Amino acid sequence: MDGSTPDTRSRILDAAAALLRRHGPDKLTVLDVAKRLGMSHGNVYRHFPSKQALRAAVAEDWLAAVTAPLMAIAADRGPPPARLAAWLSALAGIKRRKVLDDPEMFAGFHRVAVESPEVVAAHLGHMIEQVAGILAAGKADGTLPLVTDPEADARSVLTATLRFHHPDLVASTGDAATAEAELARITALLLRGLGATP
Amino acid sequence: MDGSTPDTRSRILDAAAALLRRHGPDKLTVLDVAKRLGMSHGNVYRHFPSKQALRAAVAEDWLAAVTAPLMAIAADRGPPPARLAAWLSALAGIKRRKVLDDPEMFAGFHRVAVESPEVVAAHLGHMIEQVAGILAAGKADGTLPLVTDPEADARSVLTATLRFHHPDLVASTGDAATAEAELARITALLLRGLGATP
Repeated sequence: MDGSTPDTRSRILDAAAALLRRHGPDKLTVLDVAKRLGMSHGNVYRHFPSKQALRAAVAEDWLAAVTAPLMAIAADRGPPPARLAAWLSALAGIKRRKVLDDPEMFAGFHRVAVESPEVVAAHLGHMIEQVAGILAAGKADGTLPLVTDPEADARSVLTATLRFHHPDLVASTGDAATAEAELARITALLLRGLGATP
Repeated sequence: MDGSTPDTRSRILDAAAALLRRHGPDKLTVLDVAKRLGMSHGNVYRHFPSKQALRAAVAEDWLAAVTAPLMAIAADRGPPPARLAAWLSALAGIKRRKVLDDPEMFAGFHRVAVESPEVVAAHLGHMIEQVAGILAAGKADGTLPLVTDPEADARSVLTATLRFHHPDLVASTGDAATAEAELARITALLLRGLGATP
């Protein structure tokens, strides 16, 4: 196996994430990663043509890990209204923990992510897609009969719950119980707006 | 008339706001205001016991002016669902213009406002009160039959539309037409959630 195997790519990404965790976003460079792995930097460049590409891949990995539990909920077979509520609650919980449990680490990954708007846009696209899937299922089985355009409605649902998942706002939502109660109230309002019967 | 008339208070506040507009929040001190008005600073202190009190009063005046047009909509006699939509749209338009038309001035007033959390809390309280009044009217006349607790529902409505009036978010809502269309979609969703029939 030479340095071009997918395995090397994973090792580079793991090392980069570890560097970011330990030293913050400034140390996340091709040279530092190569040094950490005892690899030539030419070998790192073979997988990531630039520091920017490396950082974008780290951000992509991080966002995928953050939202992996949501995918399972979105793909579930339960009634769409309950699934939407569970999905929104899980998203809020994940974001809350990420932002509040280790704010410094969150800030580091967040900074790397915002450097790559295309990665953030793709992430947001996946989120919209998951919610749109739930809404389309509710439209199809009649549990959310007022869904008109699943994708546009998904955007509305995500925007209306921004306070509970936007990184800059999560920190100011007060204690977890209050935030959960507020989100539950808004979710109920949105579900009724989409035609769900309690 | 001596320096203790309400008129002097207004003149001091006008001069303070003018200083803030022209030189930013750092120049907004009792000494600078006294100098601008050719007044002893003892006279300014008679109306505002501290620089902090002066700055809080400037913030209060500013927030009141920003939201004055909303009060007229809230006190209107039209059907509550249309009134809620008009109120939210007016709020979004006001905030958008304030934040985008003169970002530097907005930042200055905003900084002075956040120094006085009690002023900001009172302002938010007035906003909630106005929306709660509209919701209570809709509950009473049957146009918003699913309103349960007007104040709690008002909080939910304001939180669900945060993207369109939170100063840190308004700047990223894209062009005005897109923002308006997005807000209209969410407003329709919330109104249906509150029991309005289209």
